[in-house]
Amino acid sequence: MIILHHLRIGRSLFCAWLLEELHLEYEPKEYFRNLKTFRSQEDLKAAHPLGKSPVIEDGSLMLSESSAITTYLIEKYDPENKLHPCRKQINNWAKFTQWLHYPEGSVFAPLLIDMLLQRTNDSSRRLNEFSASEINLHFDYIQEQLGNNNYILGEFTAADIGIAYVVEVANKGKHLAQYPVLLNYLTRCKNRTAFQKAKLRVVE
Amino acid sequence: MIILHHLRIGRSLFCAWLLEELHLEYEPKEYFRNLKTFRSQEDLKAAHPLGKSPVIEDGSLMLSESSAITTYLIEKYDPENKLHPCRKQINNWAKFTQWLHYPEGSVFAPLLIDMLLQRTNDSSRRLNEFSASEINLHFDYIQEQLGNNNYILGEFTAADIGIAYVVEVANKGKHLAQYPVLLNYLTRCKNRTAFQKAKLRVVE
Repeated sequence: MIILHHLRIGRSLFCAWLLEELHLEYEPKEYFRNLKTFRSQEDLKAAHPLGKSPVIEDGSLMLSESSAITTYLIEKYDPENKLHPCRKQINNWAKFTQWLHYPEGSVFAPLLIDMLLQRTNDSSRRLNEFSASEINLHFDYIQEQLGNNNYILGEFTAADIGIAYVVEVANKGKHLAQYPVLLNYLTRCKNRTAFQKAKLRVVE
Repeated sequence: MIILHHLRIGRSLFCAWLLEELHLEYEPKEYFRNLKTFRSQEDLKAAHPLGKSPVIEDGSLMLSESSAITTYLIEKYDPENKLHPCRKQINNWAKFTQWLHYPEGSVFAPLLIDMLLQRTNDSSRRLNEFSASEINLHFDYIQEQLGNNNYILGEFTAADIGIAYVVEVANKGKHLAQYPVLLNYLTRCKNRTAFQKAKLRVVE
């Protein structure tokens, strides 16, 4: 039984979504943020030394970093390659890996800057300019990559978990009015049975 | 022959370092930033639609995202597991994957915020506080993980490429005075023959 250490509010729901896509048994363990600092509290440090989430506990393994969790879960629990290309088709597999690293390697930082700026009265022209131009650059690119496909690599793969997460964050930051293709994509992801099941068990 | 599309100044040197560790033949192709915007110029868009670097070109495959490039290179060119744990030892391999995702998944964003703030006269208390506290949190953690080891997982692995990169960025941002263990680690990494060879071919 996998334990999902889940800090509210955070990314763990998207990890639960993957667990549901893989039809795995898991038990969410809920933690709450300090309402003043918005950081996790001491209790989560038993699962992660920095109090970060999600963390999965699978037997003796405690694993953090959302995309590392994805990589591990599909390696161990997707031997039939339902959610990722076969490693032997190495170029397809490499492109999948690129899209797995892309959300946090490139897209999340400008969204985080924007989120922090939206929560304050401070303003910084340079940071605003940086985040606004990067956000447009990346969501244009993601929309172009999607094109007429339902998912980022055509069929649904585990790479969609990370892409949908940054699309969700952009949507919450009110950046998607000009991106109908991405709004439809997000709706399509959230309408998946596995996402719906995850939502019933893991409150964001 | 692998082509390394390399934008100066940027992370590509660390990609060249991995290519050297793997004793691969490669050809760096140099690009320069626009001196006003500090962004790449039109020429790099032939290799990456957003003008990002590094990109490697290996036959028909064009691959971006530093850690995806690492993942691909060790999959294809490290069959003897010299630079990463064997996938069959799945818990060790998962921890390696965690450290592969950690630099960009968690550490780079606060460093980027700090870098952008250092380049401007604007100030933002919230952003400064966020980046300062996250930077301390992460570099305490990395220093603790290193402990008395030479490398992040004991022996040198491909995960050190990403860790050394964020340590380098932190050092350039003058955040490492209190972290002698990390300064020694950075020196140890840069003294490796492969890093020295990379530096002769790829000017940062």
